[in-house]
Amino acid sequence: MSDAKRSKPYPPISYSDYLKTSPLLELQKTRSAEFGEEAHEEMLFIIVHQTYELWFRQILHEINSILAMFARDLVREEDMGTVVGRLSRIVEIQRLLVDQVSVLETMTPLDFLDFRNMLYPASGFQSTQWRLIENRLGLKASTRLKYNAQPYHASVSPKEAEVLLKSEKDPSLFDSVDAWLARTPFLQIDGYDFGTEYREAVHAMLSEDKQTVLRFAKSDEDRERGLKQIGDTERVFESLFDADRYKELQDSGTFRLQHKAVQAALLILLYRDQPAFNLPFQLLTRLQDIDELMTTWRYRHALMAHRMLGSKIGTGGSSGHSYLKAATDTHRVFGDFFNLATFLIPRSSLPKLPEALTRRLGFHP
Amino acid sequence: MSDAKRSKPYPPISYSDYLKTSPLLELQKTRSAEFGEEAHEEMLFIIVHQTYELWFRQILHEINSILAMFARDLVREEDMGTVVGRLSRIVEIQRLLVDQVSVLETMTPLDFLDFRNMLYPASGFQSTQWRLIENRLGLKASTRLKYNAQPYHASVSPKEAEVLLKSEKDPSLFDSVDAWLARTPFLQIDGYDFGTEYREAVHAMLSEDKQTVLRFAKSDEDRERGLKQIGDTERVFESLFDADRYKELQDSGTFRLQHKAVQAALLILLYRDQPAFNLPFQLLTRLQDIDELMTTWRYRHALMAHRMLGSKIGTGGSSGHSYLKAATDTHRVFGDFFNLATFLIPRSSLPKLPEALTRRLGFHP
Amino acid sequence: MSDAKRSKPYPPISYSDYLKTSPLLELQKTRSAEFGEEAHEEMLFIIVHQTYELWFRQILHEINSILAMFARDLVREEDMGTVVGRLSRIVEIQRLLVDQVSVLETMTPLDFLDFRNMLYPASGFQSTQWRLIENRLGLKASTRLKYNAQPYHASVSPKEAEVLLKSEKDPSLFDSVDAWLARTPFLQIDGYDFGTEYREAVHAMLSEDKQTVLRFAKSDEDRERGLKQIGDTERVFESLFDADRYKELQDSGTFRLQHKAVQAALLILLYRDQPAFNLPFQLLTRLQDIDELMTTWRYRHALMAHRMLGSKIGTGGSSGHSYLKAATDTHRVFGDFFNLATFLIPRSSLPKLPEALTRRLGFHP
Amino acid sequence: MSDAKRSKPYPPISYSDYLKTSPLLELQKTRSAEFGEEAHEEMLFIIVHQTYELWFRQILHEINSILAMFARDLVREEDMGTVVGRLSRIVEIQRLLVDQVSVLETMTPLDFLDFRNMLYPASGFQSTQWRLIENRLGLKASTRLKYNAQPYHASVSPKEAEVLLKSEKDPSLFDSVDAWLARTPFLQIDGYDFGTEYREAVHAMLSEDKQTVLRFAKSDEDRERGLKQIGDTERVFESLFDADRYKELQDSGTFRLQHKAVQAALLILLYRDQPAFNLPFQLLTRLQDIDELMTTWRYRHALMAHRMLGSKIGTGGSSGHSYLKAATDTHRVFGDFFNLATFLIPRSSLPKLPEALTRRLGFHP
Repeated sequence: MSDAKRSKPYPPISYSDYLKTSPLLELQKTRSAEFGEEAHEEMLFIIVHQTYELWFRQILHEINSILAMFARDLVREEDMGTVVGRLSRIVEIQRLLVDQVSVLETMTPLDFLDFRNMLYPASGFQSTQWRLIENRLGLKASTRLKYNAQPYHASVSPKEAEVLLKSEKDPSLFDSVDAWLARTPFLQIDGYDFGTEYREAVHAMLSEDKQTVLRFAKSDEDRERGLKQIGDTERVFESLFDADRYKELQDSGTFRLQHKAVQAALLILLYRDQPAFNLPFQLLTRLQDIDELMTTWRYRHALMAHRMLGSKIGTGGSSGHSYLKAATDTHRVFGDFFNLATFLIPRSSLPKLPEALTRRLGFHP
Repeated sequence: MSDAKRSKPYPPISYSDYLKTSPLLELQKTRSAEFGEEAHEEMLFIIVHQTYELWFRQILHEINSILAMFARDLVREEDMGTVVGRLSRIVEIQRLLVDQVSVLETMTPLDFLDFRNMLYPASGFQSTQWRLIENRLGLKASTRLKYNAQPYHASVSPKEAEVLLKSEKDPSLFDSVDAWLARTPFLQIDGYDFGTEYREAVHAMLSEDKQTVLRFAKSDEDRERGLKQIGDTERVFESLFDADRYKELQDSGTFRLQHKAVQAALLILLYRDQPAFNLPFQLLTRLQDIDELMTTWRYRHALMAHRMLGSKIGTGGSSGHSYLKAATDTHRVFGDFFNLATFLIPRSSLPKLPEALTRRLGFHP
Repeated sequence: MSDAKRSKPYPPISYSDYLKTSPLLELQKTRSAEFGEEAHEEMLFIIVHQTYELWFRQILHEINSILAMFARDLVREEDMGTVVGRLSRIVEIQRLLVDQVSVLETMTPLDFLDFRNMLYPASGFQSTQWRLIENRLGLKASTRLKYNAQPYHASVSPKEAEVLLKSEKDPSLFDSVDAWLARTPFLQIDGYDFGTEYREAVHAMLSEDKQTVLRFAKSDEDRERGLKQIGDTERVFESLFDADRYKELQDSGTFRLQHKAVQAALLILLYRDQPAFNLPFQLLTRLQDIDELMTTWRYRHALMAHRMLGSKIGTGGSSGHSYLKAATDTHRVFGDFFNLATFLIPRSSLPKLPEALTRRLGFHP
Repeated sequence: MSDAKRSKPYPPISYSDYLKTSPLLELQKTRSAEFGEEAHEEMLFIIVHQTYELWFRQILHEINSILAMFARDLVREEDMGTVVGRLSRIVEIQRLLVDQVSVLETMTPLDFLDFRNMLYPASGFQSTQWRLIENRLGLKASTRLKYNAQPYHASVSPKEAEVLLKSEKDPSLFDSVDAWLARTPFLQIDGYDFGTEYREAVHAMLSEDKQTVLRFAKSDEDRERGLKQIGDTERVFESLFDADRYKELQDSGTFRLQHKAVQAALLILLYRDQPAFNLPFQLLTRLQDIDELMTTWRYRHALMAHRMLGSKIGTGGSSGHSYLKAATDTHRVFGDFFNLATFLIPRSSLPKLPEALTRRLGFHP
């Protein structure tokens, strides 16, 4: 009623017209009924998958809106809260999706057999929206597992395949965040150089560790082991500062982010209390949550497939159990932010930011 | 492929054709887009309610199948496991529905205002399926709260109203269980009379309590209070054995079950370890779970309405917050099974069942 | 090993010494075993309550640390992320506490009777830590329900009572947030006056609403109702701008926040996208979550008490069921932030902040 | 008060004395405070692990009680409901344990670094109770992963190691259920032989499948593939009926149950609606749930370890991430019941049980 832009009231609408409940509740057609061999449990199978698809739609709605905000030349500061809020919503939905597996598991393998043969060759692996979510998040086409020795778009309609292939070329959330991080001005600013400062702090910390080992080692062996461990740690950190070494990490698949992006992410994680870093820190945390829940969902599905099918092949013709389990590792997108934990040093060894920088990271005076 | 009754294989089907994903994903039409004032958050509002409706459909699918089993003259023993299994599934779904409130709560009141006016007079209170669930479970028409001083079927289409009114007359789950309990042969069998036995056990227990009070009371006041409490307890139990007193409990709304049904339920709860009582015990427990989760869902929604609307009236014209909160108490269906706890006595005071009866409650020898 | 401030390594420690598992696992002494009438289920009762107490301790640890940050003359901007993070952790813990009720409900009323009499007069209402949480959050002593016609500290030890009474006098989270909001400089700054601006926007919106009613009302009755509703809305908003009317809201218990604090909260909710308002917005949201989960926990416990005890009085001598249900409304602390939804207007009617102000609400240029 | 066996009332007790809250809340001693470098987050770390240990204690309490019931020569029918109820409780607790990971994840890697060095060499892998749960459930000593190239009992105290080693020799839940299944009288009774009947049904089903392939194959290749698949299925089933082939499955680690136990489990799963099979069916289902949640918990912990430590080695000296991930597969105990799904045939092909048998599986007439 109170909308400034309209000159007349909105036409009234009822709950069922608004939510389209009539057509919605017409869409659960069991094959078992169609073939005259009604199986009570098939309804559950349909409802579980349809609710999944509805939630996938919502997740895509959120991701797409976030990608649009990252598509600007400069992400607006006023959008950051919204970005974090929408990522948090995705997390909340994912929790629901994981819990939903328990509902499907109230169906037993014997119940499933009542209609399983009627579904051939339909398979959950053909969910275009799920694939789209993976692509939008940033799963690389080259990383994808083959399914039945076929590319993932082989089992869907040509129109759907086209959508999927196009989405491989669009900038993903991973790409967007990578570029956004790499653009951060705070790595080198007003004479401050994060790389140099951090490298020195790491060296100071490790050389102190060495002193401790030399003074307190209880045996030669103890000392050797201690020093070796410090040396290993040193080499790990070096790869962060040295572009060539970092390239090796990228080539080996350990890291996927640009070198500057990794450093920016580290800067944010280390100094998250600075006002300008807090929402970016929350953003990185939410991406980890999303990655974790994507893979947890896959894992729970792998277990369910094992339970439902034993070692039999899935309705789609391939072992869902093994595929899903392999995907838990291979299809992770934001693993870089997990691996970053390796490069953190304790706050007690952390160099203080120069005042000139903290001023810039704070609010307008 | 391996179905004995078919002479040819089932025609192949794809995931998207089977789940009807295309029409399904066409059903989210936001009004804000229709009126050219796109509100990002309206999609969430639609998806949350559509998934609710899908789950309601599943719950109705289960309840209807259970009612059919109870509609036989004699419920088949082989169906009891299925009944309990399907009730357990409803519980699992309800847990999801309660958790789902958290997803809707990621929308803020300010976000809601972007499209709230466009929904008038649609309201969640118009969900026909939810009303149907309430009726099928056994909510009495006379107990229902009025909503905006109107009967609950006034706000839906005539066709939907007809469905609802008819469902009021069909036997509900409450009715079915009530009748099933009242038919139990084990209350009086082969010379055993549960009422007499239990009454004696209660009296023995209470008279021992009296001795304890008389011997150990530290003051006159202490003794008076102790004896009064025992007297009160005595009167409570008496209403269970005396048909007239029980009638009073029914008239006052404390109990709704038939007198014999209450006694049968008590027998089952007390001797649940007897093989023939175990599934009935699980059934009563699941009914309590369902009741508890129905009302928890209402309560969470009342809180959400408060959060979203403050003290404003809902889109449907009435205060959702107050209505939902009132319904948490008034719309409970299986409260009798909760109140039954009042009539239990400790196992240590419980009379042993005669061997003739335990034999009948066990498996075929 | 790598800590800069230490000159020697930390002495090694084992898992069990660190977590004190030996003494920890000695603390589950069942009374039923002590009295030679072992009841299997008593262990669950103890473990459920001990884990509650451990989580309460953690919640207090977080609240106390937050109160310390608010105790400074000026809350540091660098602390805001930490405050929000710790409130989010409390929310995460509360979700667990609510789910934990389901574990206790695997115990039946009959099981409970095996040892219930042995616990007299112990009662969950005597949990000092829970009371302390309520006080630290900001439950007013005058608002507290009596329990068995006794003040809440009557049933605990004198030492515990003292802790509780002292905590009533300490500044609570409610007090701290109230004072912090009231101090916000942005309500009137550089010639901007939020009250005036907002009041005008409300009037403009409502007068447009009036035009719509006058033009489109289908009957005299329709017009009267429409105008009356707008008039009501007008009066509601007026109470926000007029100190005397607001005082009435405070006196009637509708609002508890200071007048300036309410306005500041509104400003934050309306303009949450401004960088300087985002963490404050998250803070207000978390307080709502905490309030909602506190009361949900009470509600679930009320249902559980009903299930376990029927209408019998609790072990502590009073009806836990009724007490807990009454507390769901009465003991809420942050209801003001829920009620604030009443005062929001749609973004489309919201006045733009002057550039001078948005600059101040952004990061250092 | 009302206990028949006692001649006097139980001495009164307070909440805090009963739950031993004072000593309980003394057990959270942070090392960071001890060393004068207080880290706020260490409290969370302690509380999370102490609540885990309390829940482990409860799980052991349940498992031990179930093992005692299985230790009788003949498991009593009256105990079956209790067994299933207690397994269901374990499942409910495990759900909580999995959700609890989210609470620990509110601690960031940087927070952890504030005190991580102080914990060396303590590690979650040293939880004796967790090991004990694994042993009691039935994890074989020979299957256990080494941790840091050491047996699992090397890192705990000699007394704890002794408890663990003893538990390896005690009959586990797996052993008990295996023996109980193998004793089932219903595989061969009154002239009925499950093996023969089922084998015939499988053959009938597969030969019909062959006819379908021969009649409807669209090409030679199609026919070949169809027939090959049926042949494979045939061989899989054969291993179930042939003791030698089954031995191969055992030797290869595919199955661990005795041959008769596998058949009994299959009989129960196929004919679960028979009253005498319903609780056994629920028992097998709960064991699957427990297995699934044990491994889900490990998986979530593996992800958390990755997040917290990156690719660094854990505080205990080994990569927790990799160890936990490896254990998700290797440490599963009830995988046999999952694999059984392979041997089910659809109800439509299932032979009816002879009436003589269904009578025995029903209640006393």
